[in-house]
Amino acid sequence: MRILVPFDAREPNTRLSSIFSPEQRRKLAELLLEDVLGAVHSAGHQPVVLATDRIDCEHPVEVDDRPLTAAVNAWLDANARPVGITMADLGLVTAGSIERLLEADGDVVIAPGLGGGTNALCVRHPGFRVDYHRGSYRKHRRAARDQGISVTTLDSFRLAVDIDEPADLVEVMLHGQGEAAEWLESEGFELDTSDGRCTVRQNES
Amino acid sequence: MRILVPFDAREPNTRLSSIFSPEQRRKLAELLLEDVLGAVHSAGHQPVVLATDRIDCEHPVEVDDRPLTAAVNAWLDANARPVGITMADLGLVTAGSIERLLEADGDVVIAPGLGGGTNALCVRHPGFRVDYHRGSYRKHRRAARDQGISVTTLDSFRLAVDIDEPADLVEVMLHGQGEAAEWLESEGFELDTSDGRCTVRQNES
Repeated sequence: MRILVPFDAREPNTRLSSIFSPEQRRKLAELLLEDVLGAVHSAGHQPVVLATDRIDCEHPVEVDDRPLTAAVNAWLDANARPVGITMADLGLVTAGSIERLLEADGDVVIAPGLGGGTNALCVRHPGFRVDYHRGSYRKHRRAARDQGISVTTLDSFRLAVDIDEPADLVEVMLHGQGEAAEWLESEGFELDTSDGRCTVRQNES
Repeated sequence: MRILVPFDAREPNTRLSSIFSPEQRRKLAELLLEDVLGAVHSAGHQPVVLATDRIDCEHPVEVDDRPLTAAVNAWLDANARPVGITMADLGLVTAGSIERLLEADGDVVIAPGLGGGTNALCVRHPGFRVDYHRGSYRKHRRAARDQGISVTTLDSFRLAVDIDEPADLVEVMLHGQGEAAEWLESEGFELDTSDGRCTVRQNES
């Protein structure tokens, strides 16, 4: 199956700017993208990057500089079902979690993200369109219901964690199996387990 | 299978004190416990509450006022395998997620919690003991490896979200299927989708 992976090539991960330089944020975004593409490929599917600008990538890249929702819906207009759509910053993704997404029943399968987002979709119904941002999980469920499209919610932790905020880096360091996790370690980040939920800190040495 | 549900009957949910009164925190803790017990029961298993003090409950309650790790390990010493252990504050739990936990292969199955914790376990090996707090997911994996005990990590969003912090309430309101979700609505909480990840706010009216 073709799996669309939208990618913001310009200003990724702004909510991590308290921790990373702009250069580090770009590097992290690239590694997260590579990890997602690698997981899709390992699961036996064909990743297609939908980027806001040209990028260097060994997988097919289509460029559309419109906002996320408009770009994805234009791609859905032009392509046959079934397709998958997954965010580019799922730092815990594995081939197995992609397989679970694509094997679940339903006209549409949604893997929710923390905080009410939609991190990944399997879309089998031609009438379904996306509407990202501002609580998209609920919006997608309601829109599908209004059209009589069946929706399955996938119970996946690996697909629920997108890398937006400092706390998300903890999950990458604990559960990530790709290059982003290795890079965080190489940059000197380590887990701080001193209180409640773990946090990350950067080693000063 | 018997599923142990440790419950802090004295001072639950202290990290939610910016939002709730002590009375509300106790009420929320009770409803979350009821939701967990209900999910275990619906999945066809036998919940056993391990409480720090006597509580009113329709399911069996054993009282042990020692800290969590000591109390759970004493219970493991005294009871046969296999058993499940699940935290009492998993506000997204369903019978289906309990079934997935208990059906996964492995001497020990771990459902990790956000921030490096261990939210639920299926323990089939008699040698495994728990060590909660301060990054217990890694500690449990390492301890098992050192003893030659096989570990499976369960990819479950529903079991990954324990209700510790205000952001977790968003997940209960979005995905919870029990009494805790209903109670939050009845108390006037609603989702704020104005920026990035949703948050909760309390209706002033």
